[in-house]
Amino acid sequence: MLRGLKVALVQMAVGSDKAKNVASAVKQIHRAKEAGAQLVALPECFNSPYGTKFFDEYAEEVPSGATSRALSKAAAETGVCVVGGSVPERFGNKLYNTCTVWDGSGKLLAQHRKVHLFDIRIPNKMTFRESEVLSPGDQITTFDLAGIKIGVCICYDLRFYEMLHLMAQEGCALIICPAAFNMTTGPRHWELLARSRANDLQLWMALVSPARDTTAAYVAWGHSMLVDPWGSVVGQLKESEGTLIHEVDVKVVEEVRNNIPVRTQRRTDLYETVKKFKK
Amino acid sequence: MLRGLKVALVQMAVGSDKAKNVASAVKQIHRAKEAGAQLVALPECFNSPYGTKFFDEYAEEVPSGATSRALSKAAAETGVCVVGGSVPERFGNKLYNTCTVWDGSGKLLAQHRKVHLFDIRIPNKMTFRESEVLSPGDQITTFDLAGIKIGVCICYDLRFYEMLHLMAQEGCALIICPAAFNMTTGPRHWELLARSRANDLQLWMALVSPARDTTAAYVAWGHSMLVDPWGSVVGQLKESEGTLIHEVDVKVVEEVRNNIPVRTQRRTDLYETVKKFKK
Repeated sequence: MLRGLKVALVQMAVGSDKAKNVASAVKQIHRAKEAGAQLVALPECFNSPYGTKFFDEYAEEVPSGATSRALSKAAAETGVCVVGGSVPERFGNKLYNTCTVWDGSGKLLAQHRKVHLFDIRIPNKMTFRESEVLSPGDQITTFDLAGIKIGVCICYDLRFYEMLHLMAQEGCALIICPAAFNMTTGPRHWELLARSRANDLQLWMALVSPARDTTAAYVAWGHSMLVDPWGSVVGQLKESEGTLIHEVDVKVVEEVRNNIPVRTQRRTDLYETVKKFKK
Repeated sequence: MLRGLKVALVQMAVGSDKAKNVASAVKQIHRAKEAGAQLVALPECFNSPYGTKFFDEYAEEVPSGATSRALSKAAAETGVCVVGGSVPERFGNKLYNTCTVWDGSGKLLAQHRKVHLFDIRIPNKMTFRESEVLSPGDQITTFDLAGIKIGVCICYDLRFYEMLHLMAQEGCALIICPAAFNMTTGPRHWELLARSRANDLQLWMALVSPARDTTAAYVAWGHSMLVDPWGSVVGQLKESEGTLIHEVDVKVVEEVRNNIPVRTQRRTDLYETVKKFKK
């Protein structure tokens, strides 16, 4: 088992040209590999503009679509694990917001379909209804990389602590969350949610956003960040393009859990979070 | 039902003279009443120094002990609701860390025995084992004040989000947490935990600490604070004595829950937090 993992969080610009978006992601995977990364994570909706009117047009099947094939190839060529942000996925007559994870041989290691669709309405500020076009996933997603268990959730999933609690209970030392918060929820809750989950669950949290594009229909907050199991932000980007590369040390997970042993002090005689997931 | 509630968080100095501590609390209750408060909250362990070696000596029965009687009288005299921080409670041959809540007629409205005892060990920084002398409570505690449901937890309880989740599910608009974080956990987690719970549960959080006394065996962090249901700190003290008075507007609870409706979007087909509390 590895003691640490060098991760790269790619805060890339996403435009309306799908092939260009995918080529940009592949380029960043190669660059991250050159910088020593063992895992590269892309942002939510990295091959398509974010918006309900775009998802059908940009959707592809997984793993047969062009984007899946490009990520698989990039993973195999570089030998790094690729957490493929998310793409609009077509499956039969349904669309999902889906993250694919590829191991260093290019094999599909995991696939997460966003469980909690982003339906909010903050008057005069932000209204969005993913559920108008997307279907929700119904599974918790974790995978193993060299003995380290890693969880994946997408954006709005982050607010639903019961799901992330179950991921921690399954042994995750790191949860990766491709996400695109906006100019209303970003300043209020982006860092707070990342630090909340890291501290409560005593694990590493990685949030990966697209770069901010003020000309886009949906303006992303940016600020991709890595938070350690003490709840401290150990690295973060600003709003423009960039890649955050940082070591994720699993020893810190053990240290925090030994120092403040809330995991073993939970009063499961008085309450319990039960899992009804099929997996 | 009231739309708002003026609360006073009393960050008082606590010394070794019990009668003086209680007299000081009573004085602050009267002062808060004069300032218009409808609810006054005291800090954890306000009639005794905080430390396992003090609890047996300072313990009293509830509600027959002198501290209970003084709080009941102060509540009746002022007509305000008093959330009596906490005191070491003797019950048979057991000791508890207990919060008593008194209504404006001086009647005991609720009694919370700290459920999660503070046992931590951060090498070279902070080691504490409440469980050496205290017994844990086994109930969730909420009460109604003019139609507003309010929850009570004590200090380390705050870290156990499943219990606070159940309090929110029971309808709490405000959770009051008398607490004494220290110079290690305070800077790391005090504000983060208050904001985490407020944002995740979409309710008001009030944390009430003793004032910092750098000559004490246990040095409290201070920084009593009130956080709104957006997760924003709307008022906080520094480390010295003082009282924070602020309106708790229950309309904000409804606003946040309507804008970001996570409470109704939880996927209870996939997970659920179950209550095993006796109450």
